[in-house]
Amino acid sequence: MRAAIISIGDELVLGQVVDTNSAWLSGQLAAMGIEVAEHVTVGDDALSLAGQLRRTSQQVEVIIAGGGLGPTDDDLTRHILADILGVELQLHEPSLQQTEDFFARLGKEMTGRNRVQAMIPQGCEAIVNPVGTAPGIAAKLGGAAVFFLPGVPRELKRMFSESVRDQLSKLVAEHGQGLVLVCRVLHTFGQGESNLAELIGDMMTRGNNPVVNMTAAGGMVSIRINARAATATEARQLIGPVEDELRRRLGTVVFGSDDETLAGTVGRLLRERGMTLAVAESCTAGLLAGELTRLAGASDYFRCGWVVYSNQAKGELLGIDPAIIERYGAVSREVAEQLADKARLRSGSDIALGITGIAGPTGGSSDKPVGLVYIALSDDRGVRVERCVFLDERTIVRQRAVNTALNLLRQELVGEQGG
Amino acid sequence: MRAAIISIGDELVLGQVVDTNSAWLSGQLAAMGIEVAEHVTVGDDALSLAGQLRRTSQQVEVIIAGGGLGPTDDDLTRHILADILGVELQLHEPSLQQTEDFFARLGKEMTGRNRVQAMIPQGCEAIVNPVGTAPGIAAKLGGAAVFFLPGVPRELKRMFSESVRDQLSKLVAEHGQGLVLVCRVLHTFGQGESNLAELIGDMMTRGNNPVVNMTAAGGMVSIRINARAATATEARQLIGPVEDELRRRLGTVVFGSDDETLAGTVGRLLRERGMTLAVAESCTAGLLAGELTRLAGASDYFRCGWVVYSNQAKGELLGIDPAIIERYGAVSREVAEQLADKARLRSGSDIALGITGIAGPTGGSSDKPVGLVYIALSDDRGVRVERCVFLDERTIVRQRAVNTALNLLRQELVGEQGG
Repeated sequence: MRAAIISIGDELVLGQVVDTNSAWLSGQLAAMGIEVAEHVTVGDDALSLAGQLRRTSQQVEVIIAGGGLGPTDDDLTRHILADILGVELQLHEPSLQQTEDFFARLGKEMTGRNRVQAMIPQGCEAIVNPVGTAPGIAAKLGGAAVFFLPGVPRELKRMFSESVRDQLSKLVAEHGQGLVLVCRVLHTFGQGESNLAELIGDMMTRGNNPVVNMTAAGGMVSIRINARAATATEARQLIGPVEDELRRRLGTVVFGSDDETLAGTVGRLLRERGMTLAVAESCTAGLLAGELTRLAGASDYFRCGWVVYSNQAKGELLGIDPAIIERYGAVSREVAEQLADKARLRSGSDIALGITGIAGPTGGSSDKPVGLVYIALSDDRGVRVERCVFLDERTIVRQRAVNTALNLLRQELVGEQGG
Repeated sequence: MRAAIISIGDELVLGQVVDTNSAWLSGQLAAMGIEVAEHVTVGDDALSLAGQLRRTSQQVEVIIAGGGLGPTDDDLTRHILADILGVELQLHEPSLQQTEDFFARLGKEMTGRNRVQAMIPQGCEAIVNPVGTAPGIAAKLGGAAVFFLPGVPRELKRMFSESVRDQLSKLVAEHGQGLVLVCRVLHTFGQGESNLAELIGDMMTRGNNPVVNMTAAGGMVSIRINARAATATEARQLIGPVEDELRRRLGTVVFGSDDETLAGTVGRLLRERGMTLAVAESCTAGLLAGELTRLAGASDYFRCGWVVYSNQAKGELLGIDPAIIERYGAVSREVAEQLADKARLRSGSDIALGITGIAGPTGGSSDKPVGLVYIALSDDRGVRVERCVFLDERTIVRQRAVNTALNLLRQELVGEQGG
């Protein structure tokens, strides 16, 4: 069974909004053994959408279409669908009731313009929307089962999960089970794509099952193992030995898998060791602390942080010696050391990280370029400092500094285990 | 002139990576007066890509294709293009030299597998890649000028900006100028879409020029004014009165326009007033400080922050009275007040913000639900506290708390001006 995903909206085709629905839907379909043949995005334009629906419904068995179901004049989906089917729009009373209930729960009155959202082409089914005002529409078009959903990601996801997935499962059962895709992702930090390709390139041959590929973002490279099999269990059995071999070759460059993050891995290691952490940040200004507390339960290991953005704050909040700042500069190995040391001692934590750098785009000099960041780690064995230069824009420099600090801590924690 | 954008990659069609290139490219093309008819995403599959290229090249005058130019076996774009054109791949010496130079600058040796990236179908032009190893390819196919670029967003953007845009400008000049799109975005905070629609819904009629629409994300609603005209100047003249009317109706709900952010607006207001700021954060744990320092020059107004995640840290770092935490709880109006007051006094700043809340997903109770956040603002006139309940997941609760704190500060600063 093959599927296409159609996204509808001028804001998408004009590039004013990034479409995240297609990726999410694709992941859901692949996991059910439905192959996604293509994503197509068209504007709020009756001709384009009608043409696309007519063409695609001849090529695939399933279409998921998102967008164009809102209450405004540029939401054309229901009208175009009725046109193609040659039927009238009909008020769907249960949907109208649900929309009225939805507004009542918010303590608001339903506006007249929301009434059109309860209109469904004759012969089609409404798809309940538990978190918004627009019901979806399920229709048969050409050879395809088509599911129209609102474009709002939260609504689309809920409606897919609560209604569409079950209907697709039935279709999959009727058509015979396709191959299910199971994906395992290994996340690495600290090595570029070409270095990694030297280590595992021979395992990345196209056409293999599982097939291995990699994607890079923010200094991290993620290695995906995609396996197809009749069942998820069989697919996971195919993944097993490939994952083992990848891990054997890559060693501690791999910091986690699937939904794991660097901060999550560090948090788990700290919790396992019963250790506590504090941070002192200058150029990253709270982003490291924010990332360390992204997961619930961070209070098990994360104590506190200082955002000492100004030199004055470095002195007053943490007692960094102004003479050291004067002598070596605020962005220096020495100040990074003091940030980490003082943060550890003042917080009573087992470990502390200190970061100081020049995030840019200005403020650099010939010996201290923009992107220069010192990251220090202090524990009871002393303090060590890493000097990095990130040649990128301000936001990325700060993100990479955060990730590099997390990875430094991870290496320290893994090393302590004797690894 | 009409264009299509084709994105190539299994990782895209499997939903493992979100495509951001199409949106970016669309914005660039729209600003040049090139209408984007559709985005299409296909996998690393020779048949699909060849079919798509053949079909699309009959329908539009410009195709921008991203992806499939890498050094690995699943990068098929150059081979498929050569097949369709019925020509051989040829080593393009200048590109090989550039790739070698690129590796030399990184202090690395070029691997053999990068050599294929300098292969170009006979009769096509190479597009220089200043930031990566894969040159792009410019070709004529059917009635369309086709530009193949690497899928890595940083490389695609640089190559579009430095090479493709000029070539497109020439094509636009030959074909006759289409209508240029100019977009003005007004950002609002604090009102939902349906409330805003009540205020400005009559201005959002489809088919108007400029056309007005809105998109919502993270508690913010952005209102777009899209104008089409023969020149950018004329388009801006169309936008002027519509923007004025929108601003008149919406008042201070509008916090900025185009690339402006809440933190940027707050920063500008602080700088104009010569005021300084400090923050004390519990549940947002540094994210407010991180957002306030996203823009360069934040040191003009941002002094420092405390991330007092544990109750102990609230006492030790900021001197919050443990009896108050004991009596009212860490998430309380009283603790928020103390966080803001102590942060202001200890930092010597003019204003301070304090945030304490239950980000979830656990830790709530019947009288203090998950999502409850207290935000306090302290200045020389006293302290005021806003109580919010954000019914959403942990990450969104924290983001909305940050935005609400920024907006509270903005309102205070705008109010001080007598607004």
